[in-house]
Amino acid sequence: MRRYMLISADTHAGVPTERFRPYLDPEYREPFDEYVDQLDEIRKRTLKESLGEQLFDDKFSHEFRDEAADRVAGAWDPERRNRELEGDGVVGEIIFPDGQNENGPPFGATGRLGDSDPRLRLAGARAYNRWLAELCAHSPERRAGVAITPIDDIEAAVSEIQWAKSNGLRGGILIPSMWGDLPAYNDPRYEPIWATCEELGMTVHTHGGASPSYGGLPGSVAIYTTEVTWWSHRPFWFALWSGVFERHPELKFVLTEQSACWVPDTLYHMDVLYDGPMFAQIRKDLSLKPSEYWARQCWVGASFMRAHETAMRHQIGIDKIMWGNDYPHMEGTWPHTAEKMRAAFGGIPADEVRPMVGENAARVYGFEEARLAPIVERVGPEKI
Amino acid sequence: MRRYMLISADTHAGVPTERFRPYLDPEYREPFDEYVDQLDEIRKRTLKESLGEQLFDDKFSHEFRDEAADRVAGAWDPERRNRELEGDGVVGEIIFPDGQNENGPPFGATGRLGDSDPRLRLAGARAYNRWLAELCAHSPERRAGVAITPIDDIEAAVSEIQWAKSNGLRGGILIPSMWGDLPAYNDPRYEPIWATCEELGMTVHTHGGASPSYGGLPGSVAIYTTEVTWWSHRPFWFALWSGVFERHPELKFVLTEQSACWVPDTLYHMDVLYDGPMFAQIRKDLSLKPSEYWARQCWVGASFMRAHETAMRHQIGIDKIMWGNDYPHMEGTWPHTAEKMRAAFGGIPADEVRPMVGENAARVYGFEEARLAPIVERVGPEKI
Repeated sequence: MRRYMLISADTHAGVPTERFRPYLDPEYREPFDEYVDQLDEIRKRTLKESLGEQLFDDKFSHEFRDEAADRVAGAWDPERRNRELEGDGVVGEIIFPDGQNENGPPFGATGRLGDSDPRLRLAGARAYNRWLAELCAHSPERRAGVAITPIDDIEAAVSEIQWAKSNGLRGGILIPSMWGDLPAYNDPRYEPIWATCEELGMTVHTHGGASPSYGGLPGSVAIYTTEVTWWSHRPFWFALWSGVFERHPELKFVLTEQSACWVPDTLYHMDVLYDGPMFAQIRKDLSLKPSEYWARQCWVGASFMRAHETAMRHQIGIDKIMWGNDYPHMEGTWPHTAEKMRAAFGGIPADEVRPMVGENAARVYGFEEARLAPIVERVGPEKI
Repeated sequence: MRRYMLISADTHAGVPTERFRPYLDPEYREPFDEYVDQLDEIRKRTLKESLGEQLFDDKFSHEFRDEAADRVAGAWDPERRNRELEGDGVVGEIIFPDGQNENGPPFGATGRLGDSDPRLRLAGARAYNRWLAELCAHSPERRAGVAITPIDDIEAAVSEIQWAKSNGLRGGILIPSMWGDLPAYNDPRYEPIWATCEELGMTVHTHGGASPSYGGLPGSVAIYTTEVTWWSHRPFWFALWSGVFERHPELKFVLTEQSACWVPDTLYHMDVLYDGPMFAQIRKDLSLKPSEYWARQCWVGASFMRAHETAMRHQIGIDKIMWGNDYPHMEGTWPHTAEKMRAAFGGIPADEVRPMVGENAARVYGFEEARLAPIVERVGPEKI
């Protein structure tokens, strides 16, 4: 029986925030010390102003912590990380920021636009990216790190993409799902970012998580969890309809941890708009239908899929789905991937499962399967 | 063969804007005259700042106008309206504002929050509602008018709902899909609106159309048409999760002209959140699952459905779908309802089609089928 090669298209990494200090350019260390001092307060204020209460149930969080607290050190410790992922049967990973709440990059760099000074967020992103490059240099055959790329200053963004490429962050880049006060992604100002990513083979990502603020009003947690995925889909159709995929046919675009069931219906409706008589102007600069751009250059990092989603796999595209365990987040499948994977993929023919749980990610991110093979032989599941 | 009773759950009405003048309270007539003088300029500026170009293709618009230009007078002329709807086989209607671009209510009252003074928009809404009450008083058995209800001033909103009820606007009320700078619909400030609507049996509606501005950037028309429906879904889950349907079990909520295919997947995910261990706090004030509130008190005004949607009718709920022709809008099925209805509903058993094209709307809005029967006998289709 050939073992399954599991590559998690969605993991998270980061040291406890204060330990990013040495990775910051020296001139930002003083504001960073102030930021770290205020971090608890910032977190409390943000929570109060947005969800109003903790996202996850107390009991659920405690049970997770009881089981996993001493194991989340894999968020930053490379050896521990390998052990934890191997324990889950996983041999490769695409790494996003925010290892845990306590491990966010400096200055909230992940993308909450408007929360702090753009220069500070850029400095924070650079510090995180440097740290991530070190993490990935350990076991580079397993790790495709994704560089945080703030979009306030386009020239700086381009430099950071080049830096990331040169420093082994082959996962690509993470752009903010929400652009805040900046122009939306259909603005030509972002052209140098798309061009650089296409030229360097750096995949562009959005990752679920961003949302507007909910003012802590009743029901905010549920409202957030209901609509949060949608906010990270938007850059896809802003880019597509403004011709980004037309102009950059080699650009790869991946939508991670924001479910996959929205794909078939969204593409259906976009194709209807494209084909119909009402909006003929839509077609004028686009040689392909939306579903054809999708087929050519887009994927979903579908993370912890449910049976409801895997049942839609043929509509979404078996070659388009990249499963992820969301390690070390508590909403993911780690440390119970085998069991949860069985619930989602059980009964599906192996030749359909293999691409979704690893082979697609290997192709998109350039993992060398030959180098992973010995690890697969050791830890990959024989059966799903 | 029993003829089909067609009730359009989505039509539009309005006089050319300047003719709303006599319906305005006298103190608003001077600002109204200024508004009318600037209306062309306001429209041009809004278009430039949002979509950047016309929504509909020129050729398509011209063909529609060539065919229908002299017939859109039914937007305000009650006799003409009856003839046009009868020509489409339709015997009843739920009426929303914005008959055509040129027939918007005074001061942009339909709901583009922040575009003008809230007092002016309230005055505009009242003028429209008075005018609409007159339209509905002609053929009241056919017409369920929906009152525009601005939400800036809650006391004024409640008065307007009471006025609408007393003046025969049995369609219910239209709330803005987007709340702009006001608190979102999970804020307790809206409680008097929900309570009044429940008490008076006034159905609450959102209607597709609102969106953020797109700055006239490339692809804006396509981006708008891709995501416009979503913006009008949001009030549904803001209301549901904050307990509006729990506290007001008799309240009816209808989501009109914003497609119907989103319903099954959205309810599935909301039920998963409700049932799961991660967000236990979600359940604390809600005795029912989201899909159960939906089943009890929500519907879709599904407008011009496609075969793609009617194929999902069992998942959406045959008792939840209310077809509409969107008269007199050019994106609707009028004046070719028979043909377009066949494309969407052809081949579906008659006992499934009847509720979706009329009987559900009759129940939700209290049409007296006995009074419509003679018109059905004359104009209702024998076959779909």
